[in-house]
Amino acid sequence: MKFGYFDDARQEYVITSPTTPLPWINYLGCENFFSLISNTCGGYSFYKDAKLLRLTRYRYNNIPTDTNGRYYYIKDGDTIWNPGWQPVQTELDSYSCRHGLGYSVFTSTKNELTAELTAFVPLNNNCEINRLTLKNTSNQAKDISLFSYIEFCLWNAVDDMTNFQRNFSIGEVEIEGSAIYHKTEYRERRNHYAVYAVNTAIDGYDTDRDSFLGAYRGVNRPIVVEQGKSTNSKASGWAPIGSHNINVTLQPGEEMSYVFVLGYLEIDEDNKWEAPGVINKAPAKEMLAKFETNEQVETALDELKEHWTTLLSKYTVETNDDKLTRMVNTWNQYQCMVTFNMSRSASYYESGTGRGMGFRDSCQDLLGFVHLIPDRARERIIDIASTQFEDGSAYHQYQPLTKKGNMDIGSGFNDDPLWLIAGVSAYIKETGDFGILEESVPFDNDESKAQPLMEHLRRSFNFTRTNLGPHGLPLIGRADWNDCLNLNCFSKTPGESFQTCSNFESGKAESVFIAGMFVRYGKEYAELCKRTGNQAEAELVLAAVDKMYDAVLENGWDGEWFLRAYDAFSEKIGSKECEDGQIFIEPQGFCVLAGIGVKEGLAEKALNSVKERLDTKYGVMLLQPAYKDYHLNLGEVSSYPPGYKENAGIFCHNNPWVSIAETVIGRGDRAFEIYKKTCPAYVEDISEIHRTEPYVYSQMVAGADAPRHGEAKNSWLTGTAAWTFVNVSQYIIGIRPEFDGLVVDPCIPSDMPGFKATRIFRDATYNITVENPNGAQKGVAKLVVDGQEMSGNIIPFVDGKKEYNVTITLG
Amino acid sequence: MKFGYFDDARQEYVITSPTTPLPWINYLGCENFFSLISNTCGGYSFYKDAKLLRLTRYRYNNIPTDTNGRYYYIKDGDTIWNPGWQPVQTELDSYSCRHGLGYSVFTSTKNELTAELTAFVPLNNNCEINRLTLKNTSNQAKDISLFSYIEFCLWNAVDDMTNFQRNFSIGEVEIEGSAIYHKTEYRERRNHYAVYAVNTAIDGYDTDRDSFLGAYRGVNRPIVVEQGKSTNSKASGWAPIGSHNINVTLQPGEEMSYVFVLGYLEIDEDNKWEAPGVINKAPAKEMLAKFETNEQVETALDELKEHWTTLLSKYTVETNDDKLTRMVNTWNQYQCMVTFNMSRSASYYESGTGRGMGFRDSCQDLLGFVHLIPDRARERIIDIASTQFEDGSAYHQYQPLTKKGNMDIGSGFNDDPLWLIAGVSAYIKETGDFGILEESVPFDNDESKAQPLMEHLRRSFNFTRTNLGPHGLPLIGRADWNDCLNLNCFSKTPGESFQTCSNFESGKAESVFIAGMFVRYGKEYAELCKRTGNQAEAELVLAAVDKMYDAVLENGWDGEWFLRAYDAFSEKIGSKECEDGQIFIEPQGFCVLAGIGVKEGLAEKALNSVKERLDTKYGVMLLQPAYKDYHLNLGEVSSYPPGYKENAGIFCHNNPWVSIAETVIGRGDRAFEIYKKTCPAYVEDISEIHRTEPYVYSQMVAGADAPRHGEAKNSWLTGTAAWTFVNVSQYIIGIRPEFDGLVVDPCIPSDMPGFKATRIFRDATYNITVENPNGAQKGVAKLVVDGQEMSGNIIPFVDGKKEYNVTITLG
Repeated sequence: MKFGYFDDARQEYVITSPTTPLPWINYLGCENFFSLISNTCGGYSFYKDAKLLRLTRYRYNNIPTDTNGRYYYIKDGDTIWNPGWQPVQTELDSYSCRHGLGYSVFTSTKNELTAELTAFVPLNNNCEINRLTLKNTSNQAKDISLFSYIEFCLWNAVDDMTNFQRNFSIGEVEIEGSAIYHKTEYRERRNHYAVYAVNTAIDGYDTDRDSFLGAYRGVNRPIVVEQGKSTNSKASGWAPIGSHNINVTLQPGEEMSYVFVLGYLEIDEDNKWEAPGVINKAPAKEMLAKFETNEQVETALDELKEHWTTLLSKYTVETNDDKLTRMVNTWNQYQCMVTFNMSRSASYYESGTGRGMGFRDSCQDLLGFVHLIPDRARERIIDIASTQFEDGSAYHQYQPLTKKGNMDIGSGFNDDPLWLIAGVSAYIKETGDFGILEESVPFDNDESKAQPLMEHLRRSFNFTRTNLGPHGLPLIGRADWNDCLNLNCFSKTPGESFQTCSNFESGKAESVFIAGMFVRYGKEYAELCKRTGNQAEAELVLAAVDKMYDAVLENGWDGEWFLRAYDAFSEKIGSKECEDGQIFIEPQGFCVLAGIGVKEGLAEKALNSVKERLDTKYGVMLLQPAYKDYHLNLGEVSSYPPGYKENAGIFCHNNPWVSIAETVIGRGDRAFEIYKKTCPAYVEDISEIHRTEPYVYSQMVAGADAPRHGEAKNSWLTGTAAWTFVNVSQYIIGIRPEFDGLVVDPCIPSDMPGFKATRIFRDATYNITVENPNGAQKGVAKLVVDGQEMSGNIIPFVDGKKEYNVTITLG
Repeated sequence: MKFGYFDDARQEYVITSPTTPLPWINYLGCENFFSLISNTCGGYSFYKDAKLLRLTRYRYNNIPTDTNGRYYYIKDGDTIWNPGWQPVQTELDSYSCRHGLGYSVFTSTKNELTAELTAFVPLNNNCEINRLTLKNTSNQAKDISLFSYIEFCLWNAVDDMTNFQRNFSIGEVEIEGSAIYHKTEYRERRNHYAVYAVNTAIDGYDTDRDSFLGAYRGVNRPIVVEQGKSTNSKASGWAPIGSHNINVTLQPGEEMSYVFVLGYLEIDEDNKWEAPGVINKAPAKEMLAKFETNEQVETALDELKEHWTTLLSKYTVETNDDKLTRMVNTWNQYQCMVTFNMSRSASYYESGTGRGMGFRDSCQDLLGFVHLIPDRARERIIDIASTQFEDGSAYHQYQPLTKKGNMDIGSGFNDDPLWLIAGVSAYIKETGDFGILEESVPFDNDESKAQPLMEHLRRSFNFTRTNLGPHGLPLIGRADWNDCLNLNCFSKTPGESFQTCSNFESGKAESVFIAGMFVRYGKEYAELCKRTGNQAEAELVLAAVDKMYDAVLENGWDGEWFLRAYDAFSEKIGSKECEDGQIFIEPQGFCVLAGIGVKEGLAEKALNSVKERLDTKYGVMLLQPAYKDYHLNLGEVSSYPPGYKENAGIFCHNNPWVSIAETVIGRGDRAFEIYKKTCPAYVEDISEIHRTEPYVYSQMVAGADAPRHGEAKNSWLTGTAAWTFVNVSQYIIGIRPEFDGLVVDPCIPSDMPGFKATRIFRDATYNITVENPNGAQKGVAKLVVDGQEMSGNIIPFVDGKKEYNVTITLG
């Protein structure tokens, strides 16, 4: 069952029913000011940091679901309704919500009145624009009372929801003309305020929530709206809100537009006040002046659309599969940009109050956006590397505002260092910018300890190389990519963090997954050594890689698949010898994509075992059989009910590893089959089962053991976005940046007749046509570049050349 | 305007309208299991710790206000209603909520159906009982569908409201018969679960919130109730709830009772499971068997009432002022017991997720409950003293479960040590138990550092004595009793804690308030020294006290009142020389109640200044004039909008100090006037202004500078409870425990003709009659004990004597 459709021409998803199975959201903003907006106008806004500088209040896990947002109440006679249906939930005569790239448009009608609400965050401005157009389509004049509503958050979102003995006394506002200023704590140490204004004279306002709503009432029936008259309340403590009232008479056919702006302003310490107790409003007025007219708003919206069009033009395809095309050209890349902006902070599942930037997360996210914004990827790499410790290990997280490592979580996730190599290598392949390796980068943010980035990579590699266990495999530390495989944790205390406690540091527990990473990224690091003239280091590295390869074959192979790990007692995990958890997905995907066991035929065996034992119609499960009980020696992975999360859920992030692995051994049909299972566009038809947005990936889909098999959770902020894009763009479509140029090496289903692609790579445009006359799955039979046939599958990069026309024939 | 009335005979407050200005709540439970319950059945339950072991989910600062609780939906034909009005809000034909001592009773009628819901936590059991009786008062049979509802919290209340990417996948339940078991995380490290059951066969159940409510619906209109049929849903992740459905036909005049039990069970690690994946339910069944019948419930309720009657019989009065009588006999003492149970953790303003037990708070709370539960007060003293540091300073807070000091907050609140003397002295005066001073008590919870409690007191005193500033007054440290007077903080960073940051440790800032404490409690400590045979120490102490007394007169007097403090630059705070904050309440109250300036006539001057400059009709403000701007050198006190909280609010806690001070100089009229201004029973008539419960004190009432002058906030958990009870019971009524026996020294308004009191003191009953034939305010003209006239105002304690009949004549 569908709740909308893709409008590919406009790069929008059009939701046609407000009662989607879960709120389906969009992100507004791409620089510093961000908003989450659901298909019923729910959500909230923040400046830079969703915890510390939150402008509006949102209530997670509330009932009714998804309450609070920017709401516009239209009172037309006795009927009160909202363009987004919520919160009044009046049945609409028509409804649509179009989520586009950085904007959302709600178009609804009720009783021959049409409302169109366009919401976006303009480029280069710290505000959200809500343009509301009302049109009377009846043949009689209509007297309309319009009421706006937002609820201000008292800036720190955690304090806001816990510290009421203080918060109920500090709320302050000012009202001037049609602008409502939220200035709580501005009197003391804050140098910022919010403004919520509209570009017309108003008939009244409310800034005190209880005055607006009335006692014991919800946003679904504010007393002020019911009575059709604002109370001009001035908040003093309790809960400050912003609400404007505009009364208008619309003649038949007449329409009116109003521009509401919610903005964030920072003021110089020396210019905070324009009079005693009166805030300096000049910067706010300057911002509002930019969005006074419809034309200004249109221009800003056009600029935003142009921004996205340009951005996403870096990689486009034309295929015979609309779902594939729209995911590659639009939605997967869009989601990658959102993970760049948000990391794991603010979604409808991440409350915006907790996790910092993950070291591992950020390196992997980068794989998905480096081609879009290489300059910002470069900055991100420097930020990440700056938090690395001198021994090559890494803080697991760092704070986005200070960019310093987070001591609370600390270090000890032994896959972290190698992801830095992955990110840097991807960046250099994309840009050819070897200069980054010479950048001086601090350790632990201490400039006195700065070293060239290349030295950081050396220490990353060496950290793993020198932290091996009894089987010559890398020690896992607190955990590897699978945060929930906590082999030194042994936690018996309810609620204790599995990831930070370590009650039995065995010095023994090993990860086959990290071994796979070591082989893969060790080779990339060796290549960087070679290309920067350090042949000796390259040879040392490759020798260590070879040794690890052998260790995996010797101690990491279980007969039909790769083992997952050895526990603190050197017992096998992910082995046929285990009662539960006999096979895990991660080492199968990553060892094969690292090339391990390919020539020995083990890769194929492992991937066949995945298909046989882990596959479901909704994706590939993380492990099987699910753990029935809690295992002290395994930690969080065994804490979940069977079928959820890491305990045999379909954890989408690792599905593309298996798909890539399939391309490594040339099985394009299977690679594409795996790709499609978790790809949102392909499950749009079963939205009633899948439930999350059909245009973005979720972290997890419930596995076969779960009562809700096929149900997705935690959409948007997941490494799945980056890895699925790497998979589909570089391995299935097969257009992959390498140091020497662009490789074109598709691995597609045999029934795909070919495709066209346009790739902007190092400022040159590659127009690529792939033909598949013989139903091949892989293998470039013929490569023609600008009319000239070449051998192999790499298009050598020629400095200064701006266009490449490429034709590939598979076979 | 009133929203109810006091039923003094039943010791209940009867609320007659569900739409009180704010939720008016009650506390159920007095041992380990606690519930908050509002007058519309909102609230939540927890076991021991409101953060870590919360049974049901509550949403603070939600809209509509006060959502979630134990709700019972009655579907009678097309009408759906709740006995507590919320959440459906159907207009009721009649409604009352009786908040009694440890129980609440809701009685409502709609369409000739009466519902009576009785909620309480029985003694010695970890559960809340909800007995619901339905009676058909019509002359036709009624087919009723009854639905219960609670929403489970996933135990850790902080994690529950932030960590959705995990929480949405872990919810688990079992259903057996009429019992719903909430067992989230029991599969892993928890050894406890919750049960929600009813003592009858059920017609259906729901345990999945969304199935019960329906998409996008709130608790105000669950789809299941609307449709009259449970879906027998089994929660799997998302939000587990408990809902039973009972269908019953009531004949005219017929009534039925149902007993719902929400219980908490802990299970031995070895007996967690009765079968694979099936929790051991035996302990739950054992608990439920105790509340199977109406008779069992009645008995348990009677036991609870008896418990409270006995407890509160320790201090009762008969006066000609009903408001005074009911506050003394019932509500003030009841609130003191709640502060004992809750400290500052869980109210409708304290979210139950933050603060631990305060060192200072707990010592002061003890002053209000030591006469009720001296044994538990003794334990509490040992707990508190165990967190003290060896140098006499103290952790500002400690954790209630571990009883260890809280490192996050740390130390440095320089009034803390002296409060320990206050608490211990009050305990010994009440009990005569000097043995406590010999108890071996650790420092910083380290048993190897244990010393007798008396040594702790010595170090408390010496810490203050040896930490003096340039004027010979005590250094304030981070802050004194006024947490918001942060004289070494100098915070410029938004959101930074004023209480834990210290950017400029001046070593200079001094507190006149602590000087007052030093004089008062120094004298008490000296008395303890004398009585334990250490005359030399007593003399040293008294010499130091005298010196401090002189220092206050010399450097702490501003001409018409006491100064408040010296800042980090030795500039005066609370002086006529200041622009704002010229006079503060705390030193006026505490210095005078310590006896400073009484003989010099300064006490009277100071208190006259209080009246002239700080008084309002709603109480005495903390300071005047309010700080208009933020002062870096003052900290949080200047961060609040004028009139709120410490910035010129009526901070109720310190009002009794001034009232006591008035009794010290014999002005009974004024003492009583001050007492009445903040006393809830006296402002019942203006509940629409006061807004919080008219039966308990609030922390703060908005001062004259605030737009909402007279509005109270933060009811229930405030040191106000203890201090107002000390004031009214020991200084106004004037029955005060001293080391040698009970002192009777009333200081009453001249128009009070006298009163009777019964006081149980050290196991003896004192029947006291006070006569005031000449309209005196203070002074015992005649004391007759058991027919024998005695001099002075002290009734010497005679060991073994069980009854004293005392008559006092004032004059």
